[in-house]
Amino acid sequence: MAEAEAISNATPTEEMNGSGNLMDFLDEPIPDVGMYEDFHTIDWLREKSRDTDRHRKITSRSKESIWEFVKSLLDAWSGWVVMLLIGLLSGTLAGVIDLAVDWMTDLKEGVCLFAFWYSHEQCCWTSNETTFADRDKCPQWQKWAELMTGHTESAGAYVLNYFLYVLWALFFSFLAVSLVRVFAPYACGSGIPEIKTILSGFIIRGYLGKWTLLVKTVTLVLVVSSGLSLGKEGPLVHVACCCGNLFCSLFSKYSKNEGKRREVLSAAAAAGVSVAFGAPIGGVLFSLEEVSYYFPLKTLWRSFFAALVAAFTLRSINPFGNNRLVLFYVEYHTPWYMAELVPFILLGVFGGLWGTLFIRGNIAWCRRRKMTRLGRYPVLEVIAVTGITAILAFPNPYTRRSTSQLISELFNDCGALESSQLCDYINNPNMSRPEDDIPDRPAGPGVYSALWQLALALIFKMVITIFTFGMKIPSGLFIPSMAVGAIAGRIMGIAVEQMAYHHHDWIIFKNWCRPGADCVTPGLYAMVGAAACLGGVTRMTVSLVVIMFELTGGLEYIVPLMAAAVTSKWVADAFGKESIYEAHIRLNGYPYLDQDEFTHRTLATDVMRPRRNEPPLAVLTQDSTTVEDVETLIKETDYNGFPVVVSRESERLIGFVQRRDLTLAIRNARQKQDGVVSSSVVYFTEEPPCLAASHPQPLKLRRILNLSPFTVTDHTPMETVVDIFRKLGLRQCLVTRSGRLLGIITKKDVLRHMAQMTNQDPESIMFN
Amino acid sequence: MAEAEAISNATPTEEMNGSGNLMDFLDEPIPDVGMYEDFHTIDWLREKSRDTDRHRKITSRSKESIWEFVKSLLDAWSGWVVMLLIGLLSGTLAGVIDLAVDWMTDLKEGVCLFAFWYSHEQCCWTSNETTFADRDKCPQWQKWAELMTGHTESAGAYVLNYFLYVLWALFFSFLAVSLVRVFAPYACGSGIPEIKTILSGFIIRGYLGKWTLLVKTVTLVLVVSSGLSLGKEGPLVHVACCCGNLFCSLFSKYSKNEGKRREVLSAAAAAGVSVAFGAPIGGVLFSLEEVSYYFPLKTLWRSFFAALVAAFTLRSINPFGNNRLVLFYVEYHTPWYMAELVPFILLGVFGGLWGTLFIRGNIAWCRRRKMTRLGRYPVLEVIAVTGITAILAFPNPYTRRSTSQLISELFNDCGALESSQLCDYINNPNMSRPEDDIPDRPAGPGVYSALWQLALALIFKMVITIFTFGMKIPSGLFIPSMAVGAIAGRIMGIAVEQMAYHHHDWIIFKNWCRPGADCVTPGLYAMVGAAACLGGVTRMTVSLVVIMFELTGGLEYIVPLMAAAVTSKWVADAFGKESIYEAHIRLNGYPYLDQDEFTHRTLATDVMRPRRNEPPLAVLTQDSTTVEDVETLIKETDYNGFPVVVSRESERLIGFVQRRDLTLAIRNARQKQDGVVSSSVVYFTEEPPCLAASHPQPLKLRRILNLSPFTVTDHTPMETVVDIFRKLGLRQCLVTRSGRLLGIITKKDVLRHMAQMTNQDPESIMFN
Repeated sequence: MAEAEAISNATPTEEMNGSGNLMDFLDEPIPDVGMYEDFHTIDWLREKSRDTDRHRKITSRSKESIWEFVKSLLDAWSGWVVMLLIGLLSGTLAGVIDLAVDWMTDLKEGVCLFAFWYSHEQCCWTSNETTFADRDKCPQWQKWAELMTGHTESAGAYVLNYFLYVLWALFFSFLAVSLVRVFAPYACGSGIPEIKTILSGFIIRGYLGKWTLLVKTVTLVLVVSSGLSLGKEGPLVHVACCCGNLFCSLFSKYSKNEGKRREVLSAAAAAGVSVAFGAPIGGVLFSLEEVSYYFPLKTLWRSFFAALVAAFTLRSINPFGNNRLVLFYVEYHTPWYMAELVPFILLGVFGGLWGTLFIRGNIAWCRRRKMTRLGRYPVLEVIAVTGITAILAFPNPYTRRSTSQLISELFNDCGALESSQLCDYINNPNMSRPEDDIPDRPAGPGVYSALWQLALALIFKMVITIFTFGMKIPSGLFIPSMAVGAIAGRIMGIAVEQMAYHHHDWIIFKNWCRPGADCVTPGLYAMVGAAACLGGVTRMTVSLVVIMFELTGGLEYIVPLMAAAVTSKWVADAFGKESIYEAHIRLNGYPYLDQDEFTHRTLATDVMRPRRNEPPLAVLTQDSTTVEDVETLIKETDYNGFPVVVSRESERLIGFVQRRDLTLAIRNARQKQDGVVSSSVVYFTEEPPCLAASHPQPLKLRRILNLSPFTVTDHTPMETVVDIFRKLGLRQCLVTRSGRLLGIITKKDVLRHMAQMTNQDPESIMFN
Repeated sequence: MAEAEAISNATPTEEMNGSGNLMDFLDEPIPDVGMYEDFHTIDWLREKSRDTDRHRKITSRSKESIWEFVKSLLDAWSGWVVMLLIGLLSGTLAGVIDLAVDWMTDLKEGVCLFAFWYSHEQCCWTSNETTFADRDKCPQWQKWAELMTGHTESAGAYVLNYFLYVLWALFFSFLAVSLVRVFAPYACGSGIPEIKTILSGFIIRGYLGKWTLLVKTVTLVLVVSSGLSLGKEGPLVHVACCCGNLFCSLFSKYSKNEGKRREVLSAAAAAGVSVAFGAPIGGVLFSLEEVSYYFPLKTLWRSFFAALVAAFTLRSINPFGNNRLVLFYVEYHTPWYMAELVPFILLGVFGGLWGTLFIRGNIAWCRRRKMTRLGRYPVLEVIAVTGITAILAFPNPYTRRSTSQLISELFNDCGALESSQLCDYINNPNMSRPEDDIPDRPAGPGVYSALWQLALALIFKMVITIFTFGMKIPSGLFIPSMAVGAIAGRIMGIAVEQMAYHHHDWIIFKNWCRPGADCVTPGLYAMVGAAACLGGVTRMTVSLVVIMFELTGGLEYIVPLMAAAVTSKWVADAFGKESIYEAHIRLNGYPYLDQDEFTHRTLATDVMRPRRNEPPLAVLTQDSTTVEDVETLIKETDYNGFPVVVSRESERLIGFVQRRDLTLAIRNARQKQDGVVSSSVVYFTEEPPCLAASHPQPLKLRRILNLSPFTVTDHTPMETVVDIFRKLGLRQCLVTRSGRLLGIITKKDVLRHMAQMTNQDPESIMFN
């Protein structure tokens, strides 16, 4: 039944002819015709046309009986059901990951005595002996050294804690890399470059499979807990897409149509970002701006639904214990001033430079890993990087804790009750202390020591992230990029604040910062810096600002964020247009046709094959090729399909036939149809050719012929051809002049030509 | 110089041939070749290719001198400059409109004694004699009757006030309709249907001109002040697009390229919505979802910039005097409960039904206006509707004030200090009164009388809006639709609130509404109702929810809003898929290719012309047509272009030539080129044809020949053809079989066919 659908869907044009020749080829349909092989590109137009056909069939059947009508309703609603399921599952997984990471991160330092499955915070919140001032300390939570030796403050205890911290980190990351290597090699990396490629119409079987989902979820917890400089945001997008793919298989509407499947995956990507940051609108825009290729309005609406369901599922799990949807909830009490745009723009410049540095450094290192012997020892590499990270991270309190906690603290405004080192300002004892509106104060010793530690943390994070991203473990770079920016931003924020406090009389401060006023919010600088760095690395624009807007919940701070994001993008673009994802796509040679404009002056004739000195194009004729000829052609060439022409002399194009369909049809006919031998003539016309009686029975293959192949003339500018390939999602396009077939342009040819035009290595494109 | 660019841009394919034949036709380029006529469709591919060409030229020149380099930088930045200018101007205009409307609305009732240019609120805020409790009353503000007769409360004063209210309304609307009729007929309506059509690639000269801008701005103030049931949101989009068009003319990059111009207009539409509601993100999504046709990512980012600049310009003008960006700023203090989803969904159903009713009623009325004598008296119609509106509106306090004030009050949560009739609850005297958290209370007499007045206002608004939208004055329907929903929502909210108060013991209330708790926020119901009704009329989805989200500023209420929006869309879609804008596009016969999927089983051969019994296609041959033949062909047919074939026998396609270009080229050659007479042969090949010596000099027209016309085969399914037209923005497409030219499909044919397939009147499509 399912196969019957496959074949009849595969040749909609033929059915539409109404020529009633459904029965004259074979009674049984050929299995698998119209499907794709692994690492091949899909034909968007064909997928769309198949779906319309399926839809038409259901609509016409729905009038026949009530049961069919109900089935058609179910079919119409299946899209929403899939969205609901994706939202629920990805929200749940994100919640579980958050809880597990919380617990395991703290496990590196100690354990909760009365309930080992509690994290530090949960342990102390549940305890009765916790005071608000000392809310991080409670007798129930014991560090490992305390538990083992009873000492808490001695040098021995420190060394023991240090040792165990490193050991746990190594254990977690070893477990993670082993799981990835053994069970699901596709679970490594952030997944966003591959998802971009898949959404653009490429088939990578297993990339979004059940094993990948399971292993990526588990190993993501492990690697984040191990304290490596990576985040869970990118991998969460991959996890959500795996959920999407999983639920697609429940409905033949999505599982049988690669185009429709990609609509679901786009929405799943939105749900992934939505749970990563608690920002549903930002998630939809991220999917639209960064990930998706084909994004009709229906998808926009459904993505939004999936993103919202996911966000609310996560919220009802409430992993952060604060009833907040967003990852970094902040609330600032003072507005910003125009003069502050100068430091904000400087942060933008820093973000752009860091983005460029990171992309260049990371790509150079990944290329080295690919080319040299380094790539052969992925487990060792992970162990080494984890070891170095853990050893360097432990002594510095800002790198020892998890990166999200660090960002959270950096974003925070120093309230009156804040106990952290970063808020160690010298208070004026004469001043009454209202809750929120604290004027600028001079920095205390805690702030100065925090500044040094932050500066060290900044250098450490910048270097180690370059080596971490791209290892054979799940790794996102949203969080490390934001951390780099947040540290830089906070340092600059404190600097500006202290300058403003100590130099009220400088002209630049005179106008907006009177003594005793709260002028500068260092937390806002941290947020602006984070946006700038994230923008420099990913080149996100609108979605970045919207995510940040959802974090703060006010339009107030959009201008600083946007100023920084724009500056960062301009600075980074000046050094190279590619985002880190595009750079990785190119490094891996994925066949991704990016949205950049193609501005070279070449014509279709310069790109098409065969070239001038190559053998002529392999074509079939409509009624004079034999089965043997076809088999020889299939054996001797590796083209994905063959044009069919009237005759070799006239070269007038009739249609296009896929190699895969041709192989299947001939194999099938040889097995099941009597009289088909090697010398049988294959014909694509409606009527069999006039043959002498001695000829064996001819084989009719019109059903597998695509009668509407896409053609352009040889004079068509390549920019138009690129546009057509991009917008219509073609696999190949035939080139004609005055109605004569001249050659063929495949997606690979287009990509190779584009690479040549920008002086890249054109041989790295990996597909057929 | 400008013209030189036009011609060389018009034929990029030819230049790319590098055949060096630039000089052998004419030294001077033909003026105007490559431009479009009014009410014609643009060719997106050609526009894009022209822009690439222009860009290429600038890039290559920029290496020649520093001045050229600076010019290329300016060119690259001009897009941002245009966005900035659009944001500034449309923000300013919106602010001025808001201020003027405020003043003139109040002018209908009275005047401020010490400064006649103050509105009621400004007058009383400035006065020293105003108390907070009586903040609406101050001696400086006098009603007309008070000013003229000295009485305030007598029946005579009421009648006088009534009379003057109606008179002012009639005066404002008469002025408005006269201005529109005399100076800018295009200034009428909301403008969104036309802008959608223009953005999809249609030329309507003057629609976005300076006069339209000026007249629409002025008349918008007049009609909103006159108290008609219409809003300023749709027309603000039109105004912003006029600003966009105005600034396009500053830069040849945009003024000379219809494709690039439309990118700017998309961003301007976003700026328009941004200032209409103070919702920049919602504005961008509105432009993306509802208005735009071609929306590349670059446009997304720039739209966002323009929308933000516009919003902040408006904010710095601060027309509402509250330092808030948004039109209806609300803050609710209580969460919503799951059980409340039932009334929210009911509101969604109401919104959907109202949307259907409104669209059907309004279209029926507009059709009647178009078909019958009614349409001949637009001024009289406006006067009559204004008169009826004013006479019916004055007695009811909820319709007498401006609709935005009404919505604002309906959205509001009843705080402790609220003095309006809608907040006249019976307070428990024993209860302490905290600022925000007021428990549910029984309704007082004020609430009951308000309910009656609101019910009457609801019926009045529902009926009068149907007749108002579509008159020959600027009129938006966001505000009236929202008002209908807000009234219905508030009524339902109060009903649920009172039910919950009086029946705490009912099962449905037991779980979430204990006595003394604040369970129900009637203002939230009003907001949900407004979203539902707006959704039912416009079928906006994501942008609607995002605009509403920006109004409240919290993710808390997204689920109620979304539930209502989804329900409303589903209910309305069940009765008809068209939004009010699409219905008006169809009513006016604009050539708009909507994004709906085409699911019929027809082939290109069923749609192409010539049909079976029609005369053959008008073609030119590459080297055997004479100037006279061409002129006869142009005279006798009205086609927009002609295919060029090798010869009439072989029918093999060479290219396509535009009628307009052909006319211009021949006229030019006749005037300036010696030896070109009627019997001269026109040739499109590279080499002149071999002719006898007696023949007059042949005319080479290869330069105006498009060598890469778009072709499909006759077997191509129409759904693919529709997809190609939509995605590539074609004007026409040639149909071939086995390399032979069979016919042509134009955008008009596609639209006519789509209309036929859905049983619409196919003859109403207005373009060539």
